[in-house]
Amino acid sequence: MELKVYVNPFSQPSRAVLIFCKANGIAFEEVTIELDKMQHKTPEFAEINPMKQIPVIVHGDFKLSESHAILIYLASAFPGVADHWYPTDVCKRAKIHSVLDWHHSNLRRGSVEYIFNSGVAIAFGLPMDPKAADQGKKLLLASLEMIESYWLQKDGPFLLGNTQPSIADLALACEVMQLEVIDEKDGDSILSSYKKVQEWVENTKKAIAPYFDEVHSFLPVAKQMLNELIAKSSKA
Amino acid sequence: MELKVYVNPFSQPSRAVLIFCKANGIAFEEVTIELDKMQHKTPEFAEINPMKQIPVIVHGDFKLSESHAILIYLASAFPGVADHWYPTDVCKRAKIHSVLDWHHSNLRRGSVEYIFNSGVAIAFGLPMDPKAADQGKKLLLASLEMIESYWLQKDGPFLLGNTQPSIADLALACEVMQLEVIDEKDGDSILSSYKKVQEWVENTKKAIAPYFDEVHSFLPVAKQMLNELIAKSSKA
Repeated sequence: MELKVYVNPFSQPSRAVLIFCKANGIAFEEVTIELDKMQHKTPEFAEINPMKQIPVIVHGDFKLSESHAILIYLASAFPGVADHWYPTDVCKRAKIHSVLDWHHSNLRRGSVEYIFNSGVAIAFGLPMDPKAADQGKKLLLASLEMIESYWLQKDGPFLLGNTQPSIADLALACEVMQLEVIDEKDGDSILSSYKKVQEWVENTKKAIAPYFDEVHSFLPVAKQMLNELIAKSSKA
Repeated sequence: MELKVYVNPFSQPSRAVLIFCKANGIAFEEVTIELDKMQHKTPEFAEINPMKQIPVIVHGDFKLSESHAILIYLASAFPGVADHWYPTDVCKRAKIHSVLDWHHSNLRRGSVEYIFNSGVAIAFGLPMDPKAADQGKKLLLASLEMIESYWLQKDGPFLLGNTQPSIADLALACEVMQLEVIDEKDGDSILSSYKKVQEWVENTKKAIAPYFDEVHSFLPVAKQMLNELIAKSSKA
């Protein structure tokens, strides 16, 4: 049964889905949705996902949106995915759900609001909102602190003290990586106080080599494009 | 093994957990956390949940936060929970995850921002933010429209066209019920354009009788308390 994944490598949740498929040898057809051309807002795309968002997968007749749901589905429906990604143990699985649920209203929300209003808005021809950027940054910093002091508090190199990465590590690390898109100095300064977070991202990269870096190779390109747009906009 | 649930009936996700336990005959000890006394922000409570939020469960030595994760855990760890709450079928389960993930950044976020900034802030001695209320209302209305036109588009009386309620129905219906806390006229006008949403909430109430209404019996009390606080505040 054919698996199509509708993604864009600029989108953090898209990258998590792409990396998961590659790391687990899941065969798929990648369909790139051009966000700057607003392809995700077209009526054609709304047939696939009425939420007009990526990522989405189509597996045979089955359509599924929301990256966490997709990761869980892929881990459950495809044979050969190692247990550490989404453990069958009820308690271990529950903790991974808890991290992923927390992610929605904390790291993800803070990161998206901050990054969008610190530059990405310009790529979509929208104004930046400094107040929203500030609010997003506050939530982002509080979220990084929570990863540093709680989700990584145990001995293992991954979230929840695990010895191997789960889908939660993948989802959250892809989000943290997005900070590379904004100004390098600022991006560095944001992560510089969170040594455990930095180590954990490195551990995740290494554990999912070469796929994590391969899918993230688009980020420096995106950053350059964004800087050019910002420079152009400030001259206009 | 003892199950403790730390909740407050004013909290939508707390109600979902309480109703689930009652409807499924799961024995539990209810520990009420007084939100207006900021009990959830105390160091003692942070030992149970460092996020300082409710609901949380403690099952033996196992602590778990985030209501969706809790509902999934309860459905998985306790014998005798009917399959319709959290189906074992991979595709049906994936769709429920998708609704729950969508909920975080849409209905839940819009509802909380709108309701908090339309009155609840006063109960916590905080100022209301009319701009945030407007933004929340926009997201709330868009979310109700998405439930009306997409999540309820199929023939069955529940989300995703199901014939019996799932944990997604429970989580989302508890959120919609919170609209009763704010001004009745406004609460009514918000739901009045969404006939399918209204029917679905009624279907959910009936399917989970008498527990759904029992746990929601606190809402009119909360509303009256809130109205008194608002009246007092406007005189001050």
